[in-house]
Amino acid sequence: MTMPSPQASGNSYTFDGTASARDRRPVGIALLGYGTVGSEVLRLLKSNEETLEHRIEGPIELKGVAVSDASKPRTGVDPELVTEDAMGLILRDDVDVVVEVIGGIEYPRKLVLAALEAGKSVVTANKALVAAHADELARAADEHGVDLYYEAAVAAAIPVVGMLRRSLAGDQIQRVSGIVNGTTNFILDAMDSTGAEYSETLAEATELGYAEADPTADVEGHDAASKAAILASMAFHSRVKFADVSCEGITQITAEDIEAAKEAGYTIKLLAICEKIVDASGQPAVSARVHPALVSREHPLASVSGSYNAVFVEAEAAGNLMFYGNGAGGAPTASAVLGDVVGAARNKYLGGRAPKDLTYAQLPLAQFGDVPTRYHIDLRVHDRVGVLADLAATCASRGISLKAVRQEEDYEVNGHRAARLILVTHTAREQDLADFVANLVESDDVLEVSSVIRLAD
Amino acid sequence: MTMPSPQASGNSYTFDGTASARDRRPVGIALLGYGTVGSEVLRLLKSNEETLEHRIEGPIELKGVAVSDASKPRTGVDPELVTEDAMGLILRDDVDVVVEVIGGIEYPRKLVLAALEAGKSVVTANKALVAAHADELARAADEHGVDLYYEAAVAAAIPVVGMLRRSLAGDQIQRVSGIVNGTTNFILDAMDSTGAEYSETLAEATELGYAEADPTADVEGHDAASKAAILASMAFHSRVKFADVSCEGITQITAEDIEAAKEAGYTIKLLAICEKIVDASGQPAVSARVHPALVSREHPLASVSGSYNAVFVEAEAAGNLMFYGNGAGGAPTASAVLGDVVGAARNKYLGGRAPKDLTYAQLPLAQFGDVPTRYHIDLRVHDRVGVLADLAATCASRGISLKAVRQEEDYEVNGHRAARLILVTHTAREQDLADFVANLVESDDVLEVSSVIRLAD
Repeated sequence: MTMPSPQASGNSYTFDGTASARDRRPVGIALLGYGTVGSEVLRLLKSNEETLEHRIEGPIELKGVAVSDASKPRTGVDPELVTEDAMGLILRDDVDVVVEVIGGIEYPRKLVLAALEAGKSVVTANKALVAAHADELARAADEHGVDLYYEAAVAAAIPVVGMLRRSLAGDQIQRVSGIVNGTTNFILDAMDSTGAEYSETLAEATELGYAEADPTADVEGHDAASKAAILASMAFHSRVKFADVSCEGITQITAEDIEAAKEAGYTIKLLAICEKIVDASGQPAVSARVHPALVSREHPLASVSGSYNAVFVEAEAAGNLMFYGNGAGGAPTASAVLGDVVGAARNKYLGGRAPKDLTYAQLPLAQFGDVPTRYHIDLRVHDRVGVLADLAATCASRGISLKAVRQEEDYEVNGHRAARLILVTHTAREQDLADFVANLVESDDVLEVSSVIRLAD
Repeated sequence: MTMPSPQASGNSYTFDGTASARDRRPVGIALLGYGTVGSEVLRLLKSNEETLEHRIEGPIELKGVAVSDASKPRTGVDPELVTEDAMGLILRDDVDVVVEVIGGIEYPRKLVLAALEAGKSVVTANKALVAAHADELARAADEHGVDLYYEAAVAAAIPVVGMLRRSLAGDQIQRVSGIVNGTTNFILDAMDSTGAEYSETLAEATELGYAEADPTADVEGHDAASKAAILASMAFHSRVKFADVSCEGITQITAEDIEAAKEAGYTIKLLAICEKIVDASGQPAVSARVHPALVSREHPLASVSGSYNAVFVEAEAAGNLMFYGNGAGGAPTASAVLGDVVGAARNKYLGGRAPKDLTYAQLPLAQFGDVPTRYHIDLRVHDRVGVLADLAATCASRGISLKAVRQEEDYEVNGHRAARLILVTHTAREQDLADFVANLVESDDVLEVSSVIRLAD
């Protein structure tokens, strides 16, 4: 694909006097990877060619597409542009912007670093790479005066990166809570609608293509944890890595949990929660975690259905904001990639720099045990005098206060007359709540603890 | 307020080599207006001083605050900074970025133009000004190589401008539908919850401070029309002005309309709709309009409650996106203004330019009569043989096809035995549908047309 020169398309481009003395040759693009996302990126580059050049205020030209096996037949790409030599393509003098949509970590890390070190701006959609190595990549971008863009790495087409880095640049973020994994939202939403168990819903999701053959990264929350690391880093200007995120998936959620949540006016969502807290020593710290949470049916996140994603932001001046859309898929991801390509190419023409990966705040990471949370506990106790009083005393002795207690009679557990108790706590230290639950499990009064789920607020 | 120099605050700032040879003196800010928004802007400038300078990558300094009466007592601002000479402040050599939060059209227009012509970047929250004069202002910004920012002009803290101009810069927008006026959403939502009539709900909204003493601009849709003009211009890269927007308010919406909508699974929202259509001659054109519309209860816009705003975007590759938040108020508006100030100040240090007000597509404006719409018509007809057949024939002769017809017996209108008919049309030309309704009103078969509301889809 060759883009027309400005003259050929009849447009006139104005160039800002402050830009470097770069000549007006097209900004050269290298595309690394030609899978689901890469092929969509190329399709959009071609079909939106004219509009892209208007928005960039100058021409762009695709210089090559790097793939692992050039001999494989491919549609939609000129075979002369295809190469197996990714590094050679990156280092070409006429390549200015490198688009990385390969996936994985080590190989793209090497390529992205080489690109930045060679003075090329990089656009990546690779959440695992950014969540693991953003510090190294950001430093390289900084040292070599180029841009590192990764809008597509979090929630695909939902522009959370731009929103946190630019739109809210004058504000202070307090909390970000996101539904950032489509597979798990599809499963939880289906369980909520049908009352089915987790395993059968997962099977259905796999059949429909919403879950991969090996769904571990999604259902265990690892994918969401990568995004939580990136969101927390941006929101609080501190470095949070994938390994720093506490992570709990949805595999333990039962139909009974969903039913109990419904009765109480909640729905269960897998949330990535990033917030600024005050730690045990009274210092501010960042908490980044992924776990299932009870979301009130009145909350905007509750209505995010199917495989949609949404990110809810609480900011000091802006108040509550929510961004909703497709969090995955070739075309939505490619849309975000192309938005970044426009930004990177524009900066090559007009000068200027993308907002940086700032970590000036350097907030320490909170231990999950120190984070304030709230529990919704569903348990069966012996139906005898004094049980509730005992429980209340245990709570009080542990400094845990209850917001709501609901008791239902006439259950039977293993031949014992039982009462069902639902306890909703006020906010307390996560570790204190976890210890309280461990204590409940051991208690002679308690027949079973059937469900423990954190509340979102 | 004086911002510390980089040395004083212990930070080191790096400056890009491509930036102009501007010395490193602080970027000077002039604030025009000190009302609800202006005072919040100043509060945030002060309280977020250190973080702003990190994000800007250099220091900023407030040079003055222009007000109409400097003698009035004010809190939160150093009296020495206050001046009645807005023009003098703008033209000071040490002012680089002018923030306009005065309101009105003619006076701020003069000031903003003067600022742009003097080479100062401008941040404005003034939707009326932008909707009326964006072409003139954008031209001045272009000619003088400076930036014109107006994120706060549409839906306050919801970053729709950044999203349309940057995040979706690689995509093609098909349609933007927004709840962009908090007052009317509050009223419609309250009518929906309580079943009350429009007039009593408006009175309640006024009492609670959600509606102004003279609510005309809100309830007649004029405020939403300004935002529709701005959204349509950005989405379709064509110039749409306030006067180009077809506009219908909510004053005719009755409790009965709301009830009928509920029965059919809808809620009524005042929508600003911007879309690319194919006009009668087969050419693409832009439609920008504001009118009440039936929104399916399953649609994300339906759950936008109270005075919240939301903008729903349909894009070719990104798919459906929604942005939700506070669409008005001092702090949310100031948050958006400060985000723009960071962008403008950053460009002063690092070079580069904000995305421009591009109108390269130059799509013509569609006549409202040519726009494809759908009607939901609620009417009472004589309960006699052949009435439905007559109506169906009328539809067919006008090329209007019905998607759904529902009939209920046993009504009485002015002593006549009547049936209630609810007609839901397929998409047709707006003018054809309007003519069809006019014909119904005249028809001998029809006793009354009790409600006509367009569908959102």
